[in-house]
Amino acid sequence: MGNEKYTYVPFEALWQLEKDSFIGMGVPDEDAKICADVLFEADKRGIDSHGVGRLFMYYARVRRGQQKATTKITVEREKAGTARLAADNGMGQPVSHKAMQMAIDKAKKCGIGMVTVGESNHYGIAGYYSLMASEQGCIGITGTNARPSIAPTWSVEPMLGTNPLTIAFPTDYEPTGGHWFADHATSITQRGKIEWYARLNKPAPKGWVINSSGENPTDTNQILKDMLAKKAALTPLGGSGEELGGYKGYNYATFVEVLSAGLCSANFLQNCLGFHYEGETQVFDPYRLGHFFIAVDIEAFEDLNTFKKTSGEILRSCANAKKQPGADHIYVAGEKEYTTILEREKTGIPLSEATQLQLLEMMDELKMDKSNYPIKWTVEYSGKADAQGW
Amino acid sequence: MGNEKYTYVPFEALWQLEKDSFIGMGVPDEDAKICADVLFEADKRGIDSHGVGRLFMYYARVRRGQQKATTKITVEREKAGTARLAADNGMGQPVSHKAMQMAIDKAKKCGIGMVTVGESNHYGIAGYYSLMASEQGCIGITGTNARPSIAPTWSVEPMLGTNPLTIAFPTDYEPTGGHWFADHATSITQRGKIEWYARLNKPAPKGWVINSSGENPTDTNQILKDMLAKKAALTPLGGSGEELGGYKGYNYATFVEVLSAGLCSANFLQNCLGFHYEGETQVFDPYRLGHFFIAVDIEAFEDLNTFKKTSGEILRSCANAKKQPGADHIYVAGEKEYTTILEREKTGIPLSEATQLQLLEMMDELKMDKSNYPIKWTVEYSGKADAQGW
Repeated sequence: MGNEKYTYVPFEALWQLEKDSFIGMGVPDEDAKICADVLFEADKRGIDSHGVGRLFMYYARVRRGQQKATTKITVEREKAGTARLAADNGMGQPVSHKAMQMAIDKAKKCGIGMVTVGESNHYGIAGYYSLMASEQGCIGITGTNARPSIAPTWSVEPMLGTNPLTIAFPTDYEPTGGHWFADHATSITQRGKIEWYARLNKPAPKGWVINSSGENPTDTNQILKDMLAKKAALTPLGGSGEELGGYKGYNYATFVEVLSAGLCSANFLQNCLGFHYEGETQVFDPYRLGHFFIAVDIEAFEDLNTFKKTSGEILRSCANAKKQPGADHIYVAGEKEYTTILEREKTGIPLSEATQLQLLEMMDELKMDKSNYPIKWTVEYSGKADAQGW
Repeated sequence: MGNEKYTYVPFEALWQLEKDSFIGMGVPDEDAKICADVLFEADKRGIDSHGVGRLFMYYARVRRGQQKATTKITVEREKAGTARLAADNGMGQPVSHKAMQMAIDKAKKCGIGMVTVGESNHYGIAGYYSLMASEQGCIGITGTNARPSIAPTWSVEPMLGTNPLTIAFPTDYEPTGGHWFADHATSITQRGKIEWYARLNKPAPKGWVINSSGENPTDTNQILKDMLAKKAALTPLGGSGEELGGYKGYNYATFVEVLSAGLCSANFLQNCLGFHYEGETQVFDPYRLGHFFIAVDIEAFEDLNTFKKTSGEILRSCANAKKQPGADHIYVAGEKEYTTILEREKTGIPLSEATQLQLLEMMDELKMDKSNYPIKWTVEYSGKADAQGW
């Protein structure tokens, strides 16, 4: 993790801090528990782009009135296997938790269920919701749109969100901890990873980004500036152009955008930016994101144990395939994340100093008592945290 | 299309020849019509890897008893929104047509429907079935497993099929002809495209293939030899290694393999090879492939016209995004294929001489009267066609 300094926080303490922070923002207790669960799932799995480092983002958005701490959920349409919800610009996590649970319940009756959510906000790691389904004997699929980031093939303009298409299913392949778990954007990479490379003064691999000149720049500090100025965009999975299949990633990102925004009341593409300018003044807008949740009840097709054995057999075979010279392990999706859970159970969750400063500012403003949390802070609150463009 | 010579056949004549060929193989009339429809959808859209050039493949497989011409369909499990079918090693097309129609009918009742098919065979272009759904006001999703081709990330061994994850939905964006249509493998490319490059004596772009040494070879003739000998494999979308997101393509291919084989009675991975050796004798085996079909009824979530407008708005915005210097057009999925339909309505469907030789051999053996079809053959039957490893 480069030159950054970290403090390590026990699981329970961090979850408690997260829950109390959401309550402090005005999120009702039950919803705050869900918000903390979603955040913490990322923390323990090592998906650090979506863990405690994002807590301040939610705080900043609620603080400036861009999204509501309370989530009024409306069921706008419903059939035996489907429903369409609206979240009234509230928190993305509780409405998404409800939506996936509805999809699972409908799947248990009809065999498959799907629920969409409109007028929503950032819902945390997509994988939390697909895991919910997997833990209840279903195949879980979810996606969401997001701020414009990906350039369509032959374009240089950020249009589509990083639009994850995320899946989980149960398996008896033990290195996954029981759940195959693929949670990733339909772009090659995401802004957070470029920021991380920039902090390490590392160049980006060629092909992650396309700039206005049609080049694939590698200077991470320049890329970050250009992205803010809309002079650079992320490339879709498969990269720029068509030669290595970039149109496929672009198509999957488009599919997620349409499924997220076309089946509910949601913004799409450039309207998901979250702000506009009036003269030189930045004015924040509601994101009004859309999400979708699909659950497939495995028992409608196959006995659950047989399915787990088949999926396990497929994963075992892939893991045991002939290795590339120099490679020592073939992973399956969810394996690295499960390994991280086992490690962090021992070490605790790492908090960078930047994250600590954000938390201390938030806790100060929300009048949270630091002594309630057994955390060895390695920095002092200096009032210098900011929302980092969130 | 390189140095190959072509004859051009009118739509109706080619469809008739295809249908009569399937009937000649022993496929019942109604099923033969569906088989011809699926093949012809690829012909008219320019998806030439899956059009009339594959007719001989089905013939070769039926001729050697590897798959049955008649398709006995069993409904093994059924709920309001789902069903699991088995195809008794018959033709993949009629059972898949039935499966997608069942998924659509269930979606019209429940909002979403899903049907899986086991004990099946090559089902033609996946996109045919997703288009069926789109034409009936649904979002259509389908996938299938296939012969082992893709190496998992950090492996060099062909394990996963090219496993298409295929989607269509209706839209008012006119350049698509009314349907966004993404039909592609979860690998960067497929064997058929490498064969095409080899015929043109063109090198493959670096990254399409990984060989046993972990290199990305570009000599297409060598690649084809090495692939047959299992010394080379296709790379997943995103390429070799993890740097450009290859694990994402590997994960999507795994997802399609599990969805295809885990929810019905189907083979998976190496068992989809279609043959084994007894001593030096190649013995053909049933493929027993699995497919899945999902239909989402748009009206369960949103008025159909509103959806078409939203999806159209998303596609229009992408098409009008800022272009890469030198690029003159930004495509959306299905646009190139729709343009090809309009072109081929005028020119007819091109048949290469290799394809003509195959057709003439088949028609000779099936006692089909050449004079029934207004085709200007540019070759004479020489008895030299073969099944090309099919």
